[in-house]
Amino acid sequence: MAKLVGVTIEGMNMNRMVQYQYWDKETETLPREELEKFQLKLLRESVNRALRTPFYKKRLFQVGITSGDDMKSLQDLQKIPFTTKQDLRDAFPDGMLAVDRREIVRLHASSGTTGTPTTIYFTKKDLERWASYVARCIYGTGCTRDDVFQNMITYGLFTGGLGIHYGAEMVGMLVIPSGPGNTGRQFKMMKDHRTTVVHATPSFLLHLHSKLEEEGYTLSDLALRKAFAGAEPYSEDTRRRIEELWNIDVYNSYGLSEMNGPGVAFECQHKDGMHLWEDGYIAEIINPDTFEPVANGETGELVLTILCREAMPILRYRTRDLTSFYTEPCPCGRTHRRIRRITGRTDDMLIINGVNVFPSQIEEVIMGIKEVGNNYLIQVDKDGALDRLTVKTEVGPNIFMDDARPLNALKERIRHALQTTISINPKVELHEPGALPVSEGKAKRVIDTRPKDV
Amino acid sequence: MAKLVGVTIEGMNMNRMVQYQYWDKETETLPREELEKFQLKLLRESVNRALRTPFYKKRLFQVGITSGDDMKSLQDLQKIPFTTKQDLRDAFPDGMLAVDRREIVRLHASSGTTGTPTTIYFTKKDLERWASYVARCIYGTGCTRDDVFQNMITYGLFTGGLGIHYGAEMVGMLVIPSGPGNTGRQFKMMKDHRTTVVHATPSFLLHLHSKLEEEGYTLSDLALRKAFAGAEPYSEDTRRRIEELWNIDVYNSYGLSEMNGPGVAFECQHKDGMHLWEDGYIAEIINPDTFEPVANGETGELVLTILCREAMPILRYRTRDLTSFYTEPCPCGRTHRRIRRITGRTDDMLIINGVNVFPSQIEEVIMGIKEVGNNYLIQVDKDGALDRLTVKTEVGPNIFMDDARPLNALKERIRHALQTTISINPKVELHEPGALPVSEGKAKRVIDTRPKDV
Ligand SMILES: [Zn+2]
Ligand SMILES: [Zn+2]
Repeated sequence: MAKLVGVTIEGMNMNRMVQYQYWDKETETLPREELEKFQLKLLRESVNRALRTPFYKKRLFQVGITSGDDMKSLQDLQKIPFTTKQDLRDAFPDGMLAVDRREIVRLHASSGTTGTPTTIYFTKKDLERWASYVARCIYGTGCTRDDVFQNMITYGLFTGGLGIHYGAEMVGMLVIPSGPGNTGRQFKMMKDHRTTVVHATPSFLLHLHSKLEEEGYTLSDLALRKAFAGAEPYSEDTRRRIEELWNIDVYNSYGLSEMNGPGVAFECQHKDGMHLWEDGYIAEIINPDTFEPVANGETGELVLTILCREAMPILRYRTRDLTSFYTEPCPCGRTHRRIRRITGRTDDMLIINGVNVFPSQIEEVIMGIKEVGNNYLIQVDKDGALDRLTVKTEVGPNIFMDDARPLNALKERIRHALQTTISINPKVELHEPGALPVSEGKAKRVIDTRPKDV
Repeated sequence: MAKLVGVTIEGMNMNRMVQYQYWDKETETLPREELEKFQLKLLRESVNRALRTPFYKKRLFQVGITSGDDMKSLQDLQKIPFTTKQDLRDAFPDGMLAVDRREIVRLHASSGTTGTPTTIYFTKKDLERWASYVARCIYGTGCTRDDVFQNMITYGLFTGGLGIHYGAEMVGMLVIPSGPGNTGRQFKMMKDHRTTVVHATPSFLLHLHSKLEEEGYTLSDLALRKAFAGAEPYSEDTRRRIEELWNIDVYNSYGLSEMNGPGVAFECQHKDGMHLWEDGYIAEIINPDTFEPVANGETGELVLTILCREAMPILRYRTRDLTSFYTEPCPCGRTHRRIRRITGRTDDMLIINGVNVFPSQIEEVIMGIKEVGNNYLIQVDKDGALDRLTVKTEVGPNIFMDDARPLNALKERIRHALQTTISINPKVELHEPGALPVSEGKAKRVIDTRPKDV
């Protein structure tokens, strides 16, 4: 399946030789005209699949689309209304399901703003296809079955861990399912098994490096050559910093659970923009206010249509992620367009140590506890390389601040309730009524003092 | 691959109809004579594989075994010396590796007594075979692809999570990779997706039930019918208690990372002893003092030889687990012998919330911190349904107990160091020198006040 292609160019990428390798050369280098023909065929199939779901049947009939054949060209995609995260929540659990529940073999879920998680379903074929996109990403950075891969990302409902795991397994690397945390053990395994590639959040890569000396290691103990960094936005400066600290290549990874997870777009060996796999997704970039396509190369909101997912087709999903297309083809020969690293989001979601948190989730939790007062403040800052969340709330008027026992119990209740909902352990501070700053007009509830990377 | 076999018997198992189903009927019901012939063939292959490893080449040559053909009968297995956990550590990383490192696609590791983890390697075929054993276990309890399976066990390096996950995926159930913890979310998913089967530690099943009402659910909100319980020993009483609380069937699961992980032995629908898959393992039960086989049906230490693992053959592994064989065949028709639930271990390992901890690990950590005095005590008790670990240490003579700041810092250092090594967050208590009880002779370092289930 994988072919090593002997195109060699000099003078690029720190003057090293780059030897391209493609997991699926025919697909990855398909001439654009053929690629778009293929997209149209897959789009028709995807619309037909969507028409089997209650949600899309209603939505598409409203705009006169009753069959995939109504897609005469890729332009016709624009007749389809956008799908939002709220649509996914409203359609939960079965409204967007295109197959019998018995065909589903996996679900993944992310926490949501209203307590209803965003849940994505997969058939067996969907899992295989997802893994093959990820394998394509990994192999395209130059990794082979000779590599040793330590996956420092949370396994479980989150798509980042299992998503990359299955792709790495398909490539045939030695996969060490280490998960995040436990820096001492991470280093020991990296040394013992000559780990060459890791997958982690950029924060964790910085944090891990800060522990290198303390844990008794030096870079020469390790064989690390590459890192895949994703799950939270980061800047080109951060990438360079991680590369210099570790003396490795860092590849940017893009994905979101609604589109499977990782494997949507990934950097090739040029590390200059992420190839978005257009045989799997149709990508549009729109002006989030006018909903019109932006001019080629301009920044806007990424809108994605997944083309091959049997269990759960999603058409024109508004990712809220801001990016732009490269207008030039990549020297690597892949014809799939590149997007720039995500430069922000159209809404207010916080990403704390790689976990998505909406302020409205926090508000909902604390406002549901009757002893909590009316004013609160969400503070996010850095504790070393890691993010730290502090939730400050005023107590209600009947709580006496000089009795420590019930106050500590209340704090613990708030902390526990927040952790249950947002999967992050916050610091909780209680303040006397009136002690927190009051804003005029729209309250400033979030103070994010982390350096702006994006 | 899977066949539904319509043998139906009445009057068993709470008067319900039991309809047997076998994942691989031919293998599972192979007449014993043929099964043993097959074992001998596989044993020869396994010995040949072992002879490719430095560890076994030396060990087997010492006793005159130079080829699998030296195994003229299954009796000849007893010419092979036992392999211990210490052997695995001594041979780390490559001493027991029978294939090129490039063939390895996965490793799993458990924490060990001396800081060197026990590490097990898998080729692609090894992973497939492991998943097929697990699929056989799951399918044999009556589960089918119609089931919805919530896997409440830690994913990652621990074999329990990914091991059962791959088997459940092979069966084609809807797998919800929830991992442990977060009771509120567990219940929500159980309700939303009509979860029919869960995998968890017995402790967690008890803990989860204690939160049912508090989290706003009743049993009638749920569709749960079965649980697989493992990763820590538990009694028949505990099983019955869980079954009554949840109104479900609980199936006992046995495995250990050295033998892949889960999938070594599992209860069938009779819930009366665990079928040990003898086409995958040769099981012996020995007297741990004399090393002689015990009489059939008597209790002793389980010794296992894995028959088909390409990457890492292990011959006659002393599991330290105490059990006995059933002497009667099972009415389900499977010919693979049943073992009784594990009634204890031959060494002093503690199992705390499903995680293996050796007192020597704790000692090693705290004795490595110079401010810690010479006496310490490990206390394990119950906090509700969960286990709780408290480590009490005396401080060294130069530490002043009336200065809280440095004491708290020291406590936190000890706690962090322990958590890093044993993956459990202990409570740490500091005591004045001489404050902890002094034992005459061999110190009593561990006080385990948990009800003895085993
Ligand atoms: Zn490229
Ligand atoms: Zn049976």
